Amino acid sequence: MRLITFTTDFGHLDWFVGVLKGAVLTRHSQARIVDLTHGIPPGDVPAGAFALLAAHAAFPRGTVHVAVVDPGVGSARAALALRTRDYYFVGPDNGVLSWALRGQRVLEVRRLTNRALWREPLSATFHGRDIFAPVAAHLSAGGRFRDLGEEAMDFIRLPWPTPSRGRGGWLGQVVYVDRFGNAITNLETASVLGAGGAVGWVVLPQRRRCRVGACYQAAGPGRLVAVPGSSGCLEIAVNGGSAAALHGLKVGSPIQWIAPEERGAAAGRT
Amino acid sequence: MRLITFTTDFGHLDWFVGVLKGAVLTRHSQARIVDLTHGIPPGDVPAGAFALLAAHAAFPRGTVHVAVVDPGVGSARAALALRTRDYYFVGPDNGVLSWALRGQRVLEVRRLTNRALWREPLSATFHGRDIFAPVAAHLSAGGRFRDLGEEAMDFIRLPWPTPSRGRGGWLGQVVYVDRFGNAITNLETASVLGAGGAVGWVVLPQRRRCRVGACYQAAGPGRLVAVPGSSGCLEIAVNGGSAAALHGLKVGSPIQWIAPEERGAAAGRT
Amino acid sequence: MRLITFTTDFGHLDWFVGVLKGAVLTRHSQARIVDLTHGIPPGDVPAGAFALLAAHAAFPRGTVHVAVVDPGVGSARAALALRTRDYYFVGPDNGVLSWALRGQRVLEVRRLTNRALWREPLSATFHGRDIFAPVAAHLSAGGRFRDLGEEAMDFIRLPWPTPSRGRGGWLGQVVYVDRFGNAITNLETASVLGAGGAVGWVVLPQRRRCRVGACYQAAGPGRLVAVPGSSGCLEIAVNGGSAAALHGLKVGSPIQWIAPEERGAAAGRT
Repeated sequence: MRLITFTTDFGHLDWFVGVLKGAVLTRHSQARIVDLTHGIPPGDVPAGAFALLAAHAAFPRGTVHVAVVDPGVGSARAALALRTRDYYFVGPDNGVLSWALRGQRVLEVRRLTNRALWREPLSATFHGRDIFAPVAAHLSAGGRFRDLGEEAMDFIRLPWPTPSRGRGGWLGQVVYVDRFGNAITNLETASVLGAGGAVGWVVLPQRRRCRVGACYQAAGPGRLVAVPGSSGCLEIAVNGGSAAALHGLKVGSPIQWIAPEERGAAAGRT
Repeated sequence: MRLITFTTDFGHLDWFVGVLKGAVLTRHSQARIVDLTHGIPPGDVPAGAFALLAAHAAFPRGTVHVAVVDPGVGSARAALALRTRDYYFVGPDNGVLSWALRGQRVLEVRRLTNRALWREPLSATFHGRDIFAPVAAHLSAGGRFRDLGEEAMDFIRLPWPTPSRGRGGWLGQVVYVDRFGNAITNLETASVLGAGGAVGWVVLPQRRRCRVGACYQAAGPGRLVAVPGSSGCLEIAVNGGSAAALHGLKVGSPIQWIAPEERGAAAGRT
Repeated sequence: MRLITFTTDFGHLDWFVGVLKGAVLTRHSQARIVDLTHGIPPGDVPAGAFALLAAHAAFPRGTVHVAVVDPGVGSARAALALRTRDYYFVGPDNGVLSWALRGQRVLEVRRLTNRALWREPLSATFHGRDIFAPVAAHLSAGGRFRDLGEEAMDFIRLPWPTPSRGRGGWLGQVVYVDRFGNAITNLETASVLGAGGAVGWVVLPQRRRCRVGACYQAAGPGRLVAVPGSSGCLEIAVNGGSAAALHGLKVGSPIQWIAPEERGAAAGRT
C-alpha cells in the first residue's frame, strides 16, 4: 500500500485538512496519510514547491505526494499526476509540483480528466476534496496510473533561481524562510558548492558576512552562521535566534558564497 | 471499525490534542483518528458547530464525530452522544453538535453517564481526555451505543440564523470566516437560493456589491466575487486576497443576495 | 507494536514534522505515530519538558516518546534513549526528557551511538530526521533497546522548581502558560498540596487573590479561579478569558497557595 502526503496552504484553523482525509478514507478506508505541511502561505506556489522539494525524498518509495496550493482552483488550469521512478505527484498544473521533479526523470504525465474517480457533486472551490484526494486514494489503493486521465506531454515548470558565478564563489538568493527564521538559499551544497560547500564565507545584504560552520552552535549565541542545511541547501541562521528577523532576510535576498581560499572577497562587517 | 474525528478549540501549541489520542489509543489500540480541526477559537461554540456542519459529511458512514468546544467543562452541563443513520456525534450538550444535525433524523440520544467507560481519576477541566475520548474509543471499537448512559429526550440546539426574504432575493449573514478570509454565509445554495444560487448579485455592508461567479478567479485579481462554496453555502471572496480583511466582513455581517433578474435592486458601488 | 509520540518545536509552517514521519515510515512502514505537540516555542527546553511531563502518561504502555527541542543539534551534546517500566524516551541530552522521568525509575540509559541505525548522510541540523526518527522506528518495530548504543550512567536533569513552604501554605510559581491563557503552576495537587489541594486560596503577584474552585465556571464570567488542573498541577484561570493576558502571568510568576484554614494570610484584593 502506498503512503499519501499532503502539502497545502489550508492552515490549521478550519476543517479543510480534515475533509481532505475524510475524502481519501471514504474511497480507501485503509489509506495511510501524512501531513507534509499545511502551513504554506495562502496561494504561495513557490513556497509549496520548495517544501515538496525539500521533503519528498524522506518518504518511502511509492508514496503519493499531493500538493494543493491552488489559487486558480475552478478555473481553466489543468490538474495533473506525474510518475517518477520512486514517487507519484498529484496537484494543479501551476508549478507547485515542479521543483520536486528537478533532477528526476518524469516517466509519465496524465491530466486528471477521468471524472469517474472524482467526488460528486464537484465544487468549484475545493478540488482538494473533490479531485485530488479521491485520485490519491485511487493510487494509494494500488489503482492504475493510466486510469487517471489522458496522457499529457508537458507540465508547467516554476523557474528555479539558478545561482550564478560570483566573485570568488557563487551568487544566490534566499528561497525559503522557515519557522526558526533560518533563511534557506538556492546554493545547493552538493551540486553547486561541491565538496567545499561546508566551508567558506557568506556575504549577506549590506555587506554583513559570516562563516560557514558545521552547525548552528558553530557561532556564538546570537551570532550569524551559514550551515549546510538538511534540505541540501546552504542556509543562513543565528544561533538561538531568527536570522530573518534580525537581519531582514526574506525570499529573494541576495546571498553570496565565497570559497575559503577567497577570503579577501568577503571583506565587510562581521 | 469506525473512524473517529475530533473538532476542538485546543489549538496546536500544547499537548491537549496528543493526549486526546493517547486516551483513545489506550482503550482501542487500533483506532483510526482524523483531526477535523483544532483551530476553533477558544470557547467559540458556533464556530465549532459550523465546522462540524461543513465537514462531517465528507467522512465514511459510521464515523464517530467528537466535538470538544466546552467552556462549561466540569460544570453541570451534560455530555451527550447522538446517533443518526450515518454517524455518531459525541460532545458537550451546549449546541456544538446541533448544526451538523440540521436536516438529519436523530435516532437516539444518550447522556454519557456510564462512568465505567470513563478514564479515572476524572478531572474537572479535561473531559476530552477523561470522557469524550474513551467514549469515542468504545464506539470506534464497535461498542454498543446504549452502553454509553441513560437515554435522553432532547439536546440543546444552537439557533441557526435563518435567512429572510429580502428585496428581490434573500437577506442572510456571514456565519464563518476561514483562514483565507473568505466569508461564508448562511445562504445555502441548494436549499435557499435554489437553482439560481450560482448566479445573481450580492450586496455587502456599505452597499458594496459583487457578482456571483463560478470560482474565485471569476473576478479579476483583488476583486470581490461571491461563489457557491464547498460547504454548500454562498461565500464572499476576493481573488487572491482576504475578503474579510479588505472589506471588514465578520460573523454577523449582513449579506443580501439578489436574483439575476432583479439587478436593479443591487445598485451600489462595485 | 509500540506507538511513537513526537514533542518538538518544529511548528506547523514547514515540512519538518512531515519529514520526521517519513523517516519513521521508511524504516517501519506500519509504525503508528501521534503528534504530542509541535508547538513548543523554538528552543524552549523547559516548555518541552513540561509538555512531556503533563502528557506522557496518557499513552499506552510501551509507547516510545520522542522529544526534539534541540538548540544544540549538531554540537557535542549527546543523544539519548531511556527506558522505564512503562515507556521509552528518546531525545537530546539537554534536559527535555528529564521532567517526565521525575518519580519514575529509569531502568536503562543508552547513548545513541549505533550509526547503523541512523539515516545517511547525517545532517548537522536535523537529527530529528536522521537519528531520533530512525531510532524510534527501530524501537516501535520491537527492536532491542541495547542495540541503540553504549550504555550511559547518567543524563542531564533540568532543575524542577520545587515549591517552598510559605505563610499558611506553599509558595510556587507558574511553569507553563497554555493556549487558553491558563497559568499552570508547580503546585502539584496530589503530592504537594495533598487532599486540601482542591480547596483554599491562591495569591498572585500584586496581592491579587482568588479561590480554588472545582472548575473554570466556579468563578463568574471574567473572574479568576484556581483549579486542580488536568496535568496534576494547580492552575490559574479566568472563566471565559485568558488569565495570563488579563493578569500578566508568565513562566516564573510567583504563586502562593493558602490552606483553607489560613484565610487571613490571603488578605488582598480580589
